[in-house]
Amino acid sequence: MGEFELIAQFFTRPQHPLGPGVELGIGDDCALLAPTPGMRLAISSDMLVQGRHFFADVDPRSLGHKALAVNLSDLAACGARPLAFTLALALPQADAAWLKAFAEGMFALADQHGCALIGGDTTQGPLNICITVFGEVPPGQALLRSGAQVGDDVYVSGTVGDAHVALQVLLGHVTLDDATFAKARQRLEQPTPRVALGQALRGIATAAADVSDGLVGDLGHILKQSGVGATLRAQDAMQLLAACAVSTGATGQFASKNASFISPELHLQSVLAGGDDYELVFTASPANCAAVQAAALASGTPVHCIGQIEAAPGLRVVDSAGQPVAQGVKAFDHFAPHKG
Amino acid sequence: MGEFELIAQFFTRPQHPLGPGVELGIGDDCALLAPTPGMRLAISSDMLVQGRHFFADVDPRSLGHKALAVNLSDLAACGARPLAFTLALALPQADAAWLKAFAEGMFALADQHGCALIGGDTTQGPLNICITVFGEVPPGQALLRSGAQVGDDVYVSGTVGDAHVALQVLLGHVTLDDATFAKARQRLEQPTPRVALGQALRGIATAAADVSDGLVGDLGHILKQSGVGATLRAQDAMQLLAACAVSTGATGQFASKNASFISPELHLQSVLAGGDDYELVFTASPANCAAVQAAALASGTPVHCIGQIEAAPGLRVVDSAGQPVAQGVKAFDHFAPHKG
Repeated sequence: MGEFELIAQFFTRPQHPLGPGVELGIGDDCALLAPTPGMRLAISSDMLVQGRHFFADVDPRSLGHKALAVNLSDLAACGARPLAFTLALALPQADAAWLKAFAEGMFALADQHGCALIGGDTTQGPLNICITVFGEVPPGQALLRSGAQVGDDVYVSGTVGDAHVALQVLLGHVTLDDATFAKARQRLEQPTPRVALGQALRGIATAAADVSDGLVGDLGHILKQSGVGATLRAQDAMQLLAACAVSTGATGQFASKNASFISPELHLQSVLAGGDDYELVFTASPANCAAVQAAALASGTPVHCIGQIEAAPGLRVVDSAGQPVAQGVKAFDHFAPHKG
Repeated sequence: MGEFELIAQFFTRPQHPLGPGVELGIGDDCALLAPTPGMRLAISSDMLVQGRHFFADVDPRSLGHKALAVNLSDLAACGARPLAFTLALALPQADAAWLKAFAEGMFALADQHGCALIGGDTTQGPLNICITVFGEVPPGQALLRSGAQVGDDVYVSGTVGDAHVALQVLLGHVTLDDATFAKARQRLEQPTPRVALGQALRGIATAAADVSDGLVGDLGHILKQSGVGATLRAQDAMQLLAACAVSTGATGQFASKNASFISPELHLQSVLAGGDDYELVFTASPANCAAVQAAALASGTPVHCIGQIEAAPGLRVVDSAGQPVAQGVKAFDHFAPHKG
């Protein structure tokens, strides 16, 4: 199959509307967007590499979903409404079954968000997926990492940590019962970008980022860029792990609802430093507590307050007695040895 | 070196102005563009893979230049003014000397065009460079592939074919004297995107594309999307080869000015089907002949008329007696066996 046949067969949808704001899609030297006059265009680009971001045997449908999801998650984190995206794809070979499933997974998510594929590139090479996504946000309303204020509450959407536990299972470091693993794996392989929540938080959140490299790392970006620090409550943070474990409370032991067990250390590590959840971490004034809950309700996305922004730089995680925990927790770094 | 340190050291230029139209650059979940109200945003994305688009030992400064040049060339082909770009980079390792040279080559070209790096991604993996570029063009003035009209002249900017000859030398198929090879290699490794010419041709050219995969293939896209055909004059086309060869005229033999020789077959193949030149192929009404020459003069870019658009589908290449030549010439296909 040739390059242009491949694009025509799997990535061109002549019957599919491109949506408002897209004037020209695939097939010319450039695509053309017609942005709403006065709006800001939010842009993000993520590259996924086999062996680094996914395993060679990953379900291609899930991979198509995830490659777009991680980009939509960046739009969510700045409160933008998705418009369109480009896809650049290096493939070892043109495998029709693989491409069909990959495209289906990608377009299913794209259609949920009215986000049209408008262009890109395909070439032969080690498997590599680079998506660049475009969204609109009104002037002055983008959620930035730099806006957190001393006294703000720190929130996290949904649940975090399950993706990291699923990765540990895939790497053979941990075992879980099948049902629990299936739920955790869903979080790893088919994350849900919090696009509606991000838009609902415009004018409410003071800062936001998506949790891609882990809570400590991504909240760390907010703290650094806002010139503030924070304290997180370990007990509240540990409740964020959903599929794999629940606290048994006073005993300090953690057991899965489905009789799978993970260690307290892995539990805390997964919640605080596990990547790949694609939830939002954001800050908001306590005065906006009700507005945050209303945004969560309107967007159908639960949010949890797990700490506060403080003037003292750095990130502290404390137990119920106010004592520091989790000294060894580190965020994911793509140039550090593989976290697996 | 960590991911964020790498970005800070090589790809962040805090003292460098982002230029009008860019509201927020590197460092948040998204970059923010502030497009001029009413303008169209032209977008193109290209992925360069080691072993496919460049050799492992290519000069990183040239590679940085070329990775951006091929994208700017797409903006040129649609007549857009460059605004900004994102860079996603997979690297086997963080090699400081390599990254410094790569960034220098890329930024030197970016600065020539006032095109700011606004975001992207870095990860570990087989070397892969994906740039997505953004430009502005007034509504209705983008040069598309679909506008060629029967009777139009077919033009090519600058020179084509030298990049292909240089590739043949690097692959060991051909030898050239050092001075000739140096000139040809410059065309392969540091192509000049015809950004000023593209903008000067707004309202004059009826269709345009950049010559990335070869003249036959890229003009073929124009013909197909315009629903027309064309005849090219081989003798005029063969004059497009610059560094490597000149026609000796009546004898039918071709010899380099610098005493290197390439065969007439390689000469014709290089001009018609050699990729990587990043010139513009475009069409314009004969009534706009003077306007085309004025645009060429204003942009400092020579252009040559090498044929005509016709109603009969397909692309014909004829000799001075009107007889067909070059039946075996094919455009480059990224999923065909490597043209080397």
